[in-house]
Amino acid sequence: MKGPIYPPLSKAMLSRLVKLGQKKHRDIEGMFLAEGVRTVSELLDGLPDPGLLQALVLEEHAVARMSGLKRFKGKVFIADADSFSRLAQTTTPQGVCAAFRKQSVARFQPASGRSFVVALDDVQDPGNVGTIIRTAAWFGADAVICGEGTADPYNAKSVRSSAGSIHAIRILSVPSIAKELQRLQGEGFMVTAASLDGSDYRSFDDWPLRRALVIGNEANGISPDVLELADRLLLIPHAGSEPAVESLNASVSAGILMAGLSFV
Amino acid sequence: MKGPIYPPLSKAMLSRLVKLGQKKHRDIEGMFLAEGVRTVSELLDGLPDPGLLQALVLEEHAVARMSGLKRFKGKVFIADADSFSRLAQTTTPQGVCAAFRKQSVARFQPASGRSFVVALDDVQDPGNVGTIIRTAAWFGADAVICGEGTADPYNAKSVRSSAGSIHAIRILSVPSIAKELQRLQGEGFMVTAASLDGSDYRSFDDWPLRRALVIGNEANGISPDVLELADRLLLIPHAGSEPAVESLNASVSAGILMAGLSFV
Repeated sequence: MKGPIYPPLSKAMLSRLVKLGQKKHRDIEGMFLAEGVRTVSELLDGLPDPGLLQALVLEEHAVARMSGLKRFKGKVFIADADSFSRLAQTTTPQGVCAAFRKQSVARFQPASGRSFVVALDDVQDPGNVGTIIRTAAWFGADAVICGEGTADPYNAKSVRSSAGSIHAIRILSVPSIAKELQRLQGEGFMVTAASLDGSDYRSFDDWPLRRALVIGNEANGISPDVLELADRLLLIPHAGSEPAVESLNASVSAGILMAGLSFV
Repeated sequence: MKGPIYPPLSKAMLSRLVKLGQKKHRDIEGMFLAEGVRTVSELLDGLPDPGLLQALVLEEHAVARMSGLKRFKGKVFIADADSFSRLAQTTTPQGVCAAFRKQSVARFQPASGRSFVVALDDVQDPGNVGTIIRTAAWFGADAVICGEGTADPYNAKSVRSSAGSIHAIRILSVPSIAKELQRLQGEGFMVTAASLDGSDYRSFDDWPLRRALVIGNEANGISPDVLELADRLLLIPHAGSEPAVESLNASVSAGILMAGLSFV
């Protein structure tokens, strides 16, 4: 059985897509790239609206590795190896790449009643940003709010780490995380932050219905202005009198605190 | 002030160290490599015995970035850029590399009384292996047991992710994780495994004093023979009736379950 024949990717479209490797162009176009059989398949499977797919670019040999392409008729293009290598950002590309529209959220407005949001304060590793988005989606957070210094959630590595969840949760970037958290406090949110100076996160039983959890920088933790406004600092206790390692990984501590603070 | 002058790295030692990039040679020599200012500093700071350091190799420009070198007199060597690039496994090396002796543990024998161990069943991503070691050290696990298919914990990426904790916890590799878990069951351990088919991990209040937590493969979960022998399968519940993402990251779910099962 011969499959359908897809049109070749035009030079103009290739140039446009290649530019999405840079944050500046992702912001201008409101689009991002995803790469690899697994990452692209996860994103396509969980797509809330097929219109979010802008283009699916395949090398000929990779067509058979993708299923359900029919749904995306008119948006699938074939690229030769040379063109594909310009698009690919990994060292061993698999011949599968897709451009999606971001679901841009200009401002987070919680519904009435209970709400749980995760705020990223200078989280610099894109792998951590993507993993935290994935975890926040699992625990049903209403939004992930990215502050200054935080890696672009639409960076290729972050998209890969988010395991297809990037469309499943509201993601927004704000110029000042401190101001955004103060706005949320005005809406009734308790702002909590992971900190080695905090109290055992399991010691509280009076959580309000609106909670914001701030995750700080991998090396330096929460920034001083966020520390100052935080309502509650949370510590994940370690074994022994001295910890055997200086700290937990940011994604891991985010996961442990989300498990404790979410409404699951 | 002029600092001390260190001898140049010999060609023979360079060849020997370069080979440690391969698991086979790490196993033969009982040594591993760590790279980068931060990773090497973390390992040196937490070193239980200075004798574990075999060699610290620096490019001239990086000497000033490392502190406390006096402690390691006779083990610090200078490499030129060409030699260093043969050692370095990262794309942007920082001119700091060290070889350490592994603290090999042939067999895990728990002390009497309570014990908590983490077992890795085909965890393939070295970043996950290192992050799980780091988390296990934080929560005071007695050992991390690596089964077949699991990435080498002494791989450069795993060492980086373990954030200096690799000497702080017993690490061992076993040819059959199922057999090792059965042996532990004979020693009174309850074997628990993360699984989407399990019960809410928070629903148990009858944990015995000896607990083994198994973390499975990133894509396929726990292997059938381990599933069969497990005493208890643990699920981390998600929000909503359907999860917004297929699964949690392996390191994140390991962290959440360790927070629940450890003695902290």
